[in-house]
This record gives sequence, C-alpha cells and structure tokens, in this order.
Amino acid sequence: MTQQARAVRTRRSILEAAASVFEELGYEGTSTTEILTRSGLTRGALYHHFSGKRAIADALVQLQEEALVLPDHPVRLQALVDLTMMYAERLRSDVVLRAVVRLTVERGSYQTGANYRGAMVAASTLLSQALERGELLPTVDPDELAFLLQGVFTGSQILSQAANGRADLPQRISGMWRMMLPSIVRPRLLPEIDIDPDRGGKLLGLLSP
Amino acid sequence: MTQQARAVRTRRSILEAAASVFEELGYEGTSTTEILTRSGLTRGALYHHFSGKRAIADALVQLQEEALVLPDHPVRLQALVDLTMMYAERLRSDVVLRAVVRLTVERGSYQTGANYRGAMVAASTLLSQALERGELLPTVDPDELAFLLQGVFTGSQILSQAANGRADLPQRISGMWRMMLPSIVRPRLLPEIDIDPDRGGKLLGLLSP
Repeated sequence: MTQQARAVRTRRSILEAAASVFEELGYEGTSTTEILTRSGLTRGALYHHFSGKRAIADALVQLQEEALVLPDHPVRLQALVDLTMMYAERLRSDVVLRAVVRLTVERGSYQTGANYRGAMVAASTLLSQALERGELLPTVDPDELAFLLQGVFTGSQILSQAANGRADLPQRISGMWRMMLPSIVRPRLLPEIDIDPDRGGKLLGLLSP
Repeated sequence: MTQQARAVRTRRSILEAAASVFEELGYEGTSTTEILTRSGLTRGALYHHFSGKRAIADALVQLQEEALVLPDHPVRLQALVDLTMMYAERLRSDVVLRAVVRLTVERGSYQTGANYRGAMVAASTLLSQALERGELLPTVDPDELAFLLQGVFTGSQILSQAANGRADLPQRISGMWRMMLPSIVRPRLLPEIDIDPDRGGKLLGLLSP
C-alpha cells in the first residue's frame, strides 16, 4: 500500500470511529481520547489529519453534504419522495449520517445550520421544478412546503428514534406522504406517486426490487 | 410570611433558576452550582428540596405535565388546533416549557419519554373525539395522525429555534394546519377552523382578542 493510500485509510478510520462516538455521546460528550480508543490509532496520527474535535465534526458534516445527491426521476415530486425515503433508510444504516443528524439537532457548543440548509435547498429546488411542470396544486408555496416537510422529517426521526431506535422510520415517512399528498399534488398524479415504505431500501439496493 | 410560604417560594426560585440553566446549557452542561448562582440560594436550601440535578429536572417535567390542559372547544379539532397554537406561543414566553422541551429532545444521560407521551395521548384523545363526532374524514387514523402532528410540531420548533429563536413559530404552526387540514377535515367544516397565527396569544390573554 502506498503512503497516500495509507493516509486515506487512516483518515477514514478516524472519521468512522468519530461518527460512532458523536452518535452515541453527542458533541459535548465526545473526546478525542474516546475516538482514539475506538479507532486504535495514535494521537499523532489523529492530529496529523485533524486539528481537533471540531475539525473532525466539520469533516463529517462535509462528507454528509457531499453524499446528498438529488434522485433523478422525471416526476420531480417522486424525486423528492425518493430523497426522503432513501434518507430514512440511510439513517438506519449509515452511522455518519446519524452522527451529523445528532450534531445538527442538538444545541451545544458545536453549532452549524449547514445540514438544515442543504436539505432545505434540495427540497425547495425539487418542489419549484414540480410546480413549474404542473405536478403540484397552484396554491403550493415551494419554500413554505420545503420547511414544513423538513419539520415533519426532523420531528418524525426524533420521535421514531426515541420510540424504537428508528425501526419504524420508513413507515412514518410513508405515512407523512400519504397524509400530505392530497394537499399538494394534482389529483390526476396522485395514484402515480409511489410512497411504499420499502422504496428507500430498494433504491439504495438494500432490498430486492 | 409563614415557614410554609417561604418553603414554597424557595422551591419555586430553584425551579425557575434551573429552567433557565437547563434551557441554555442542556442537561449535561447544567450543574447545581450554576443553579445556585442564578437563584442566589444556599446549597443547603437546594438539597432541602431536591436530592440533586435529576430530581430538579423531574420536577420541571412534572410541572410541565400538570400545565397541559385540553382546551374546551365544542369542535374537537379546533380544540387540538388551539392546543398547538397555545403551545407554540408558550414556547416563546415560558422558560419551564422551553427547558423541558430541550430535556426531551436531546439524547443524553437524562432520558424521559414523558413529555412525548403526554402530548401524544392528548392529541390522540382529541382526534378520536373529532372522528366520533364526524368532524374528520373517515380515512383518518387518530393515532397515526397524532404521531405525524407531533412530528411536525417537534421538527418545526427545532427549525424555528435554529433559524430565529422561535420568532416565527406561530406562523409555522399555522402553515402546518393550512397544509394538513384539507387531508383531515370534512370539507364543510374546513372554513370554520380558525388557524390564525395570533390565536394562541389571544387564547392565553397575551394579545387582545
């Protein structure tokens, strides 16, 4: 293995260990010592890559933002549904995402609105496109609806996490869409939108289609 | 002042000081020393009333639950709207409520699902009554809708808190109802439900009617 490949692997080990610690203990409760214990690396290796706890948290947020890819479906509202269904599924399988969500939701000395902004812009963009294409009822305000949807998603994942460790989150997000779609979408399009709870897992290749 | 009246006043001083510390610093960040500094009381006075930080947090949660009174409106869906609008308004004026919300939302060594359960039971009860009285579309599942509404509320107040210190929360909750009502309520009742953002303030006597 080249020196560069080793460096990449070390950096990834630090980030993975840090994600599991942040997810479990929150920003305040996390120490670089605990990250070192879980990664099995030396303090020198950690400080070669990061200046400290905040820099590691920033790197996780950035990693998460880079992973936000808008689904490419011709019906833009379906693309938004797919974004939320995949996000719900990834919250169950991706420790980096869970860590960033905890860092974002909790008010503490680590504060960044970045995660909220990125998701809000993505939702607003898809809804504006859906409105232009005549998928939505003309009364819909894309920015207001994007805020509302993000509110439902954020709240649902907190409640689902508290109730059963997010086991029922895909069902909850599917239920959110079943309840909201009649107020949003043109009636003729309603039966075409797929909100099956398994959709996120199928799109991510975690469940067979 | 009698000894008993003094004791009641001391207990209240401790709880008010503790609420402001919990709201600002979260459960982990709060110390009894900081509570004593803000209340101006002695450590002996504090330990006369409470065994420690956890007991004070428990007392705040209990205080908050006792304050949860179901609004008494003949249209049960309006009573539920009023519950959410007053709650939104109180989150801006009541430090005890804000403290309990932060204790409930954040995962930490202080964990109680009590606040979620109380609000969920209240919402489910009002929705079941609304369904029985024919106010809702027959497709509505009261428990599922109660979970969804609590999710929207929880998420909206977190986002509104992050964006502008909850200044726009009543507008956000009003927007939630405007978006959700067409999927929930019988069409004939729709124009009768009042979702004005000022409604919570008026009902609490904070704004003139």
